[in-house]
Amino acid sequence: MITIYHLGVSQSDRIVWLMEELELPYQLEWFGRAESGLAPPEYKALHPVATAPVIRDGDTVLGESHAIIEYIINRHGNGRLGVDKDQPNYADYLYWMSFRDSLQANLMLRMFLRNMSADDPAVKRADDFSRERDERMFNHLEQRLGESDYLAGPEFTAADLINFFAFTTLPLFGGPTVDHLPNLSAYVRRVSQRPAYIKAMAIAGPTAKEPL
Amino acid sequence: MITIYHLGVSQSDRIVWLMEELELPYQLEWFGRAESGLAPPEYKALHPVATAPVIRDGDTVLGESHAIIEYIINRHGNGRLGVDKDQPNYADYLYWMSFRDSLQANLMLRMFLRNMSADDPAVKRADDFSRERDERMFNHLEQRLGESDYLAGPEFTAADLINFFAFTTLPLFGGPTVDHLPNLSAYVRRVSQRPAYIKAMAIAGPTAKEPL
Repeated sequence: MITIYHLGVSQSDRIVWLMEELELPYQLEWFGRAESGLAPPEYKALHPVATAPVIRDGDTVLGESHAIIEYIINRHGNGRLGVDKDQPNYADYLYWMSFRDSLQANLMLRMFLRNMSADDPAVKRADDFSRERDERMFNHLEQRLGESDYLAGPEFTAADLINFFAFTTLPLFGGPTVDHLPNLSAYVRRVSQRPAYIKAMAIAGPTAKEPL
Repeated sequence: MITIYHLGVSQSDRIVWLMEELELPYQLEWFGRAESGLAPPEYKALHPVATAPVIRDGDTVLGESHAIIEYIINRHGNGRLGVDKDQPNYADYLYWMSFRDSLQANLMLRMFLRNMSADDPAVKRADDFSRERDERMFNHLEQRLGESDYLAGPEFTAADLINFFAFTTLPLFGGPTVDHLPNLSAYVRRVSQRPAYIKAMAIAGPTAKEPL
């Protein structure tokens, strides 16, 4: 059985969502954040890099969302929610899985920049760079969701699941909202209605509370 | 035949390296950088997000290194340089493939911060955050390469190839050097001697010139 080491208000909620979508059993170990807002020392001790999520499967302790999702899908989920290399939308699946890494890297940069003084020309340069990238990425999402119901094609896949945090949780913490993008907004509403998503967010989402 | 749209001094050099490792044919289209140092308009027109690398395979135009590498390995390379889901080091392979995304996101943040005034408390906070993450990630690399010849296990894989740019090219542009980490340094020297790497860097590496 897989153990999800869940850090409160973090990207580990998407692994709970994945397990609920796949209807696989799991144990959840909850770690509250330290007063600083960062992960507590017990969470950092789980893994050398120790950013959420972290899972355990037997002797394997694994970090990185992208890696965890592929691992669970292919080792425990019979490939469900993935796209096989022989499918016509294999490249789309791979692209949108990796898109999240670039999207979140840029959003992290922008969230740090937000509090910096724009009088500093180096802040201005980073801001211009990241704003342009941000616009390109959100425009690409909007365009894609105008031609396809889901990111990798006509079916919901892990490529939707891995990107979703950026559209739902990051706006709660100063990230850009998606309200001005009609295709993306409609998609967010639609995916938010999935029973596995609703259940997972009640258990481990950004407003969920540690069980007593 | 795959076309690699190569942006000079960029991460698309790793796709040239991949093709040389797999001994697959490819066409290289070279795009010099604009005077600003950024990608020229013709490069940006290739793809909605348009960060290097970008490839074409028939009608498929694909961005994102991680996606491109998995695509080429599994569609054209018979899985060579990948690790199959049934192998014992599958989780290691997935982890170190994704590690690069976090590593480079953090290095990008640090390279922007380098020019900002540390008098700004928001710059100081971002710097502290990224410095700790940087240390953890490089320590993890150093530890891993003390127990294993390559990142995913005893054999060279795409997980080595995808991370290598951060150890070789980024230091030329202000990224951290790896000299103080003996295992990582020895690994960089060893991997740098691979004939496919030497050939690819001569064609498309950071000091290569556009062919006439």
